[in-house]
Amino acid sequence: MFVEQRHELILREVRERGSVRLAELAESLGVSMVTLRRDVEHLAGRGLVHRVHGGITLPEPAQESTPRETMTIGMLVPAATYYYPNVIRGARERAAELGARLVLGVSRYDEAEERMQVKQLINGGVDGLLLTLTRQPDASHAEWLSGIGVPAVLVERKAELGGAASLLDAVASDHPHGAFLGVRHLAELGHRRVAMVTRVSPTAPRIREGFLAAVRAFGLDDPGELAIDQDGPTDAQAGAVVEAIRGGVTGLLVHNDEDALLLVQHLRVAGVRLPDEVSIVAYDDEVAALSDPPLTAVAPPKAAVGRHAVDLLVRRIQEGSSMPGQHLALLPELRVRDSSIAHE
Amino acid sequence: MFVEQRHELILREVRERGSVRLAELAESLGVSMVTLRRDVEHLAGRGLVHRVHGGITLPEPAQESTPRETMTIGMLVPAATYYYPNVIRGARERAAELGARLVLGVSRYDEAEERMQVKQLINGGVDGLLLTLTRQPDASHAEWLSGIGVPAVLVERKAELGGAASLLDAVASDHPHGAFLGVRHLAELGHRRVAMVTRVSPTAPRIREGFLAAVRAFGLDDPGELAIDQDGPTDAQAGAVVEAIRGGVTGLLVHNDEDALLLVQHLRVAGVRLPDEVSIVAYDDEVAALSDPPLTAVAPPKAAVGRHAVDLLVRRIQEGSSMPGQHLALLPELRVRDSSIAHE
Repeated sequence: MFVEQRHELILREVRERGSVRLAELAESLGVSMVTLRRDVEHLAGRGLVHRVHGGITLPEPAQESTPRETMTIGMLVPAATYYYPNVIRGARERAAELGARLVLGVSRYDEAEERMQVKQLINGGVDGLLLTLTRQPDASHAEWLSGIGVPAVLVERKAELGGAASLLDAVASDHPHGAFLGVRHLAELGHRRVAMVTRVSPTAPRIREGFLAAVRAFGLDDPGELAIDQDGPTDAQAGAVVEAIRGGVTGLLVHNDEDALLLVQHLRVAGVRLPDEVSIVAYDDEVAALSDPPLTAVAPPKAAVGRHAVDLLVRRIQEGSSMPGQHLALLPELRVRDSSIAHE
Repeated sequence: MFVEQRHELILREVRERGSVRLAELAESLGVSMVTLRRDVEHLAGRGLVHRVHGGITLPEPAQESTPRETMTIGMLVPAATYYYPNVIRGARERAAELGARLVLGVSRYDEAEERMQVKQLINGGVDGLLLTLTRQPDASHAEWLSGIGVPAVLVERKAELGGAASLLDAVASDHPHGAFLGVRHLAELGHRRVAMVTRVSPTAPRIREGFLAAVRAFGLDDPGELAIDQDGPTDAQAGAVVEAIRGGVTGLLVHNDEDALLLVQHLRVAGVRLPDEVSIVAYDDEVAALSDPPLTAVAPPKAAVGRHAVDLLVRRIQEGSSMPGQHLALLPELRVRDSSIAHE
């Protein structure tokens, strides 16, 4: 007899008789007291029975749960044109499978807009929120987050250890792992001088973490880091990359891969031969395959992040605080294309 | 109504009637379609029902005749007397709910024994493994892990970024978070000099990480760290703790909590008054409640770790590499008892 069956029989017994002694129950079910106590603990933990000395009773009448027509999930993303369309697609698919409704808000990386959108979603009656904040959550978010009033899952954001947001459930791509994969690929191809090219973004520190870990792990030369503006590489920034290549850098990890495309155009104009003079690994894999040559890229599991975030939120809405907080990291994968070759 | 009851009622209904429409089922159970679809997906994934348009039927006879307990999960733990009994309980319960068989191996923190046990489990035909290695996985595990040949989930172990084991699925308590909670509790009570007392274990570095993060976050005085032997505190080690207290330390985070119990006895003999002279937070919450006074303790979600590890392994066995690797961290909670009081 399996656990579920036993639980069902125990519940039936206590429902019919109001209260049951454990010794009798063990005998009638033909199980040991150890097994029975474990079952009772399980059922009591879920509020299905109430423990009294030597036995169990029905729990006090709980609040009536009214059946709901549908569950509504609010989803706030900073942008709906880059990266997030795939996260949204995953969330939308999973919500549809579960018959839940997904309502989207976009903050356009504006914090005032973000709080306004969340307020509107909550006033609209969402049962829970998927939150991709405009920046990594810190102490300044504490009061706001604690007052939201519905369950929330952080998406593609990493709460500071012990910080205000660390008690929230979270689902995110493991970007340090992804960056590590990209640099390892270049190291295995024989590249010793690898630089990271990155724009300012909430994700950049996490990519840097993986980049530096790989540089250490494979004993690469002290790396440079080259900055890129929010609007893509300026002429001066692209010039700095060309200079680095002329100075001996043979591998680049470029975040994000829209920038990688623009950078490739700059490099071509400057006469840098790809991939002969420099190997490139793009990060994000949004448009990397469309470059000429198609770019090797690290692909975060965006749709899976969306799917798992919906799963976790629905479970949290249904089960409340009875389950421990969860932080789920999903591993990116490397997609090797034509922009990375062995260093002679 | 809780998950298990619903599943049982759904199965009963479909067994009695052969097929049921989802809309009717939702109404008769008084649950939302969202909840029902999730239940049906769960049951269908386990071959207990078959989905048809708008409803469910009994599975095909061919599937029905296939025994459900064909899946066998091997579980290797370093010890079955401390901490792991609760992880095992969670795993066992979840395996039983899913109709899988769980086979246990114990390595007794011996690496040769560990490899032997894994070999035996694999030769015995397990479909997947839950692995709590005797120490944190590193490069020395790479070859062995890659040759195991069945899906494996790391349990209560943290793979190094980009290391051999980092591609494995993993489920673990978030020990840095737990240690942070313990130190924050002491800081909020006004303690400024807090020391960590720890034994050598695979978990110690993760607890140290959370301890140091909290010391930084709350601007506590530079902390000491006091070591404890594998067999509990020696007289000299307990003496060092007493000395630290005489020297102004007013708070202790003690890992593990069996050691905390022994330490409390040493302190009492030395004339240290608890909790007046020193507040103690134990880590693990195995026996902390049994101390006199009952010890405040950080409780990792052990059973939930076991449950989620089984869930993840079963999904991985069923879905193969189509889903991205997952690293799940579950948050510990703080249980405040009588060993921690405000510092005057």
